[in-house]
Amino acid sequence: AAARAWWAWLLACVAAAWGRVAGFATEVWRIGADDPRKAVHGLKVGLSLALVSIFYYIRPLYDGVGGAAMSAIMTVVAVFEYTVGGSVYKSFNRAVATASAGVLALGVHWVADKTGEFEPYILTGSIFLLSAAATFSRFIPTVEALFDYGVTIFILTYSQLVAVSGYRVDELAALVQQRIFTVAIGIFMCLAVAIFVCPVWAGQELHLLTTLNMEELAAALDCVEDYFAEGPAAQPQARSDGYRCVLNSKDSEDEQANLAWWEPAHGRFGFRHPYGKYGKVGAAMRACACCVKALSTCASAEAPAPEHVKRLVRDACTRAGARCAQVLREASRSVATMTTSSRALSLAVADMNTAVHELQGDMRSLPSLVDDTMPVFTVASQLVELAA
Amino acid sequence: AAARAWWAWLLACVAAAWGRVAGFATEVWRIGADDPRKAVHGLKVGLSLALVSIFYYIRPLYDGVGGAAMSAIMTVVAVFEYTVGGSVYKSFNRAVATASAGVLALGVHWVADKTGEFEPYILTGSIFLLSAAATFSRFIPTVEALFDYGVTIFILTYSQLVAVSGYRVDELAALVQQRIFTVAIGIFMCLAVAIFVCPVWAGQELHLLTTLNMEELAAALDCVEDYFAEGPAAQPQARSDGYRCVLNSKDSEDEQANLAWWEPAHGRFGFRHPYGKYGKVGAAMRACACCVKALSTCASAEAPAPEHVKRLVRDACTRAGARCAQVLREASRSVATMTTSSRALSLAVADMNTAVHELQGDMRSLPSLVDDTMPVFTVASQLVELAA
Repeated sequence: AAARAWWAWLLACVAAAWGRVAGFATEVWRIGADDPRKAVHGLKVGLSLALVSIFYYIRPLYDGVGGAAMSAIMTVVAVFEYTVGGSVYKSFNRAVATASAGVLALGVHWVADKTGEFEPYILTGSIFLLSAAATFSRFIPTVEALFDYGVTIFILTYSQLVAVSGYRVDELAALVQQRIFTVAIGIFMCLAVAIFVCPVWAGQELHLLTTLNMEELAAALDCVEDYFAEGPAAQPQARSDGYRCVLNSKDSEDEQANLAWWEPAHGRFGFRHPYGKYGKVGAAMRACACCVKALSTCASAEAPAPEHVKRLVRDACTRAGARCAQVLREASRSVATMTTSSRALSLAVADMNTAVHELQGDMRSLPSLVDDTMPVFTVASQLVELAA
Repeated sequence: AAARAWWAWLLACVAAAWGRVAGFATEVWRIGADDPRKAVHGLKVGLSLALVSIFYYIRPLYDGVGGAAMSAIMTVVAVFEYTVGGSVYKSFNRAVATASAGVLALGVHWVADKTGEFEPYILTGSIFLLSAAATFSRFIPTVEALFDYGVTIFILTYSQLVAVSGYRVDELAALVQQRIFTVAIGIFMCLAVAIFVCPVWAGQELHLLTTLNMEELAAALDCVEDYFAEGPAAQPQARSDGYRCVLNSKDSEDEQANLAWWEPAHGRFGFRHPYGKYGKVGAAMRACACCVKALSTCASAEAPAPEHVKRLVRDACTRAGARCAQVLREASRSVATMTTSSRALSLAVADMNTAVHELQGDMRSLPSLVDDTMPVFTVASQLVELAA
């Protein structure tokens, strides 16, 4: 009996473990199936690493353990990002930082060499001062936005080159030259694979995110209609949950706009595509989402407004809500197709204004809907600006 | 005359350049003066780098260009973060990733060595497959939250070790051992400086952020009072801008809660401090901030409500707003002092409930204020949970 209980327990354990593994595998598969570009990104990283290692396998350039091959591989691993903009940003930073740190290390080493016995103090002191100053500079907003990664690489390269300063200046110069050369090879392979094999553009991602967020908001606005519908308003919450992701999208928007700035012209995105405008549209949309949230909290309140009050304003409110949603949908379409001031959008805005005026005329006792429409105006005006 | 014009132009240029430099210097100084810990952080990084380089200066362990010293310096530069939690997270990831990648590289190299002529294909293929799989695994939420940095280091170490596989297995074993040893030295120096020299705890930062956000919200709620005040309501906007930073604080909160999880017990923060609760309080506060935003948009609307409507509800509204602010202030104090269910807080909540019921009884025509108080209930209930 004891043996049987033990067997049953073991089987249960195996079944449970298998269940967890299967669940995990399903989740992983779902991530890949939802967005195959993520799987492709993995393959791209593997490809560029294999290319670099083949390159060094064919031409064994390395002198001693961990010379050029290690540096080139480190470049590929560190520089390869999901979007092209990210890769270009890191490549540029790495190249500039390696070159400037190399030149500076040569200069300091030359000076220290002249002073003779003070050499170790000067070298250690310069590491301390330069890395402290560089680390602090990362807190300056401009530096953080454009050169955060570069500062890290500057500290790293300078410290490494100075730390191997048992070597003579001309050997150090050869080391610096080799370092810059290998970094260049790594960056070249990386950018080639990132741009020519199924590229993922940060600008496009940003564009898509903006369009989708507008659609979400429009769908969330339908809660107004649900609220005023007759009968039990059972599931208004389910449809209006979209505003949450709009509210939380600020950081990813900012990051992608930053990265998109580095991207070369591609597709319908020109060289000086106004990525900054997306941030403004996003801010207007978040303001709008806030109002939608207030609306939907209102609509799903436990103590609903009495039926006769509702009936008083039903038509005007439903119309205003529908027109707002319509404006957002038109705006989303206009952004998606990148058309300047589409006729449909201005028509929809005019319709919305009429509906809002009617509502304002009808009643002044439901302020939250009235000020809900103001951010929509803002979105519309920002959008006209973007389209221009 | 031409020479004088030229001189004037030159002087103007110099003055402009000097102005810009001075402005930049002032900004940098302000950043340091506002939060001296940022300057201290720079000095700490400099200190640990100087320590590592002195260590290798005294005991020249390196064999060939860029051996142990380079690896140790790279560890310090990459692992040292602003908060202790960040440093521990990266140290742990780096240690585990280096060790596992080293062991795996040894194993694969041994197998490849046995197969003879297929060796280069097996090695390059393994780099391709492993790095592709590891890169893809970074998109899995669990892996991203806990091991994102470790995966990078795993790819890096494995590729580097396999790429130098011109060496025999026993030489590779020595290399792996040396790599692990130097990483350990780097991590040790790093953690020692991070923890014992003016530590910055992510948990404390998170705690402070939550407290400050509550204060901001309470201050923003005063816009209700301004709105109902007699005379020209000129500057309600200025006081209520605090909700903006509350709305945008989600990502930094999530990040700090993640890092705080790695921190050892310190001060009043025990080993299993419920950092997850801060996220819930934060979500409740963001919902609250949304309502405050809707309120303040309402209060600063261009077409204000007629004076007689205002007078009708002034007392009840002002009282409800003030009581809400009071609850938030008490909650902030209770979080700040980490007291369990303070008497003042429950008193304030009771007061607020009374005021809200009065308001509800008075009128049902101003729905936005009524549902403004609901998130406050949520905050209060979350808070009681946190305090427990």
